[in-house]
Amino acid sequence: MSGRLVIAGLGPGAGALVTPEVSAALSEATDVVGYIPYVARVAPRPGLTLHASDNRVELDRARHALEMACAGRSVVVVSSGDPGVFAMAAAVFEAAEAGPAAWRALDIRVLPGITAMLAAAARAGAPLGHDFCAINLSDNLKPWPLIEKRLRLAAEADFAMAFYNPRSKARPEGFAKTLNILQETCRDARPVIFARAVSTPEEEIRVVPLDRCTPEMADMRTMVIVGASTTRVIPREGAPFVYTPRSVPA
Amino acid sequence: MSGRLVIAGLGPGAGALVTPEVSAALSEATDVVGYIPYVARVAPRPGLTLHASDNRVELDRARHALEMACAGRSVVVVSSGDPGVFAMAAAVFEAAEAGPAAWRALDIRVLPGITAMLAAAARAGAPLGHDFCAINLSDNLKPWPLIEKRLRLAAEADFAMAFYNPRSKARPEGFAKTLNILQETCRDARPVIFARAVSTPEEEIRVVPLDRCTPEMADMRTMVIVGASTTRVIPREGAPFVYTPRSVPA
Repeated sequence: MSGRLVIAGLGPGAGALVTPEVSAALSEATDVVGYIPYVARVAPRPGLTLHASDNRVELDRARHALEMACAGRSVVVVSSGDPGVFAMAAAVFEAAEAGPAAWRALDIRVLPGITAMLAAAARAGAPLGHDFCAINLSDNLKPWPLIEKRLRLAAEADFAMAFYNPRSKARPEGFAKTLNILQETCRDARPVIFARAVSTPEEEIRVVPLDRCTPEMADMRTMVIVGASTTRVIPREGAPFVYTPRSVPA
Repeated sequence: MSGRLVIAGLGPGAGALVTPEVSAALSEATDVVGYIPYVARVAPRPGLTLHASDNRVELDRARHALEMACAGRSVVVVSSGDPGVFAMAAAVFEAAEAGPAAWRALDIRVLPGITAMLAAAARAGAPLGHDFCAINLSDNLKPWPLIEKRLRLAAEADFAMAFYNPRSKARPEGFAKTLNILQETCRDARPVIFARAVSTPEEEIRVVPLDRCTPEMADMRTMVIVGASTTRVIPREGAPFVYTPRSVPA
């Protein structure tokens, strides 16, 4: 019997944001593999084995999933958000490329999900309604000077920017440096959205002008979206709407 | 009775990619508003009025939706993909900002969807697994020199790039210029993904080295994803896997 491997995105947290395609894949799986809090979102049932592992062991987890699929199991690797955006899909392909040829011959499918930046943007309005970029601020896997170069070029390009993994206890200084660079480069009060734990009961959305942002406004559960120079705020009772117009005049 | 306005993303085409949140909003709507082919994806039912309009009338459509919501209707504006990415959400907020104060006091909610770039990336592997940008190549709403500037800066930043609206009959030359710029700037054979009509019966995925790309490989239904310098191709029987590793060595 030949196995299969699906890498599925569970979206940012709410069950109502899991696609029917992903729900169907989970209902057919024999094994679900992933980081502890994501596996905890999958309902146990007879015939399904849950394999939860800790953070920072992405390649081990990927190899385990590939081995099981090669042995004929129907394996789903779960990620939060979209598996292709700073998540497990790239790790699985890295492992497949470096591993035995049988891994590359497997039926491997990626099922997209609602990534955090789109869920966060939706809560605030439409800050990503014009050209934008997505940057992982963690320097675990790339040198900090590359992040800094990308921030400066993204500001020059006047992209709205979505930041994943802005800040952790182990790396509190990266987001402080990021804010310094953007405050120096942009020199304005464009809106910045701090969207924490979007679509979960702990959700918090704050909109803060760039010149008043401070590092502790973000933690590891926060998605940060920095507007472009054209991004607008519509004040109203409660949270404002934030959107980036579709047009830039000549 | 106070109305409400929901701006919902239908995903790229397949019903299995519509979130339960969006399906629930459609089931409660009194009116659905949108571009003809997107409204055609909503099942008619008693009590639901479908308002389909042609392309390029986004602001008229947005005002119509806001007026109906103000009159107490429960209105859903539908977009394909995610409504916040080059779609109707920004148009609704533009109309709301310029319109009567009552429009800004409305309950307006954006429901995210699977945007074309994430569906296309998933089909190919994980080309957006590292930092990336999204650029709308249409110059209907912004000057071409701004697009060109962004392309050059994005290449310098070594972002993977996702291009929406690469080419139309009315503007065949923009994508040709885009390819010229990238071929001159990047000077390599990094993979480019042409993903047409993803998740529909007409889906076609091609992976072509940048130095062999030609303009007619894209049309208005094509999502184009250009890899970063680090993006890798895993050849195999059938379509290759394309992914961008999570790491960049120092």
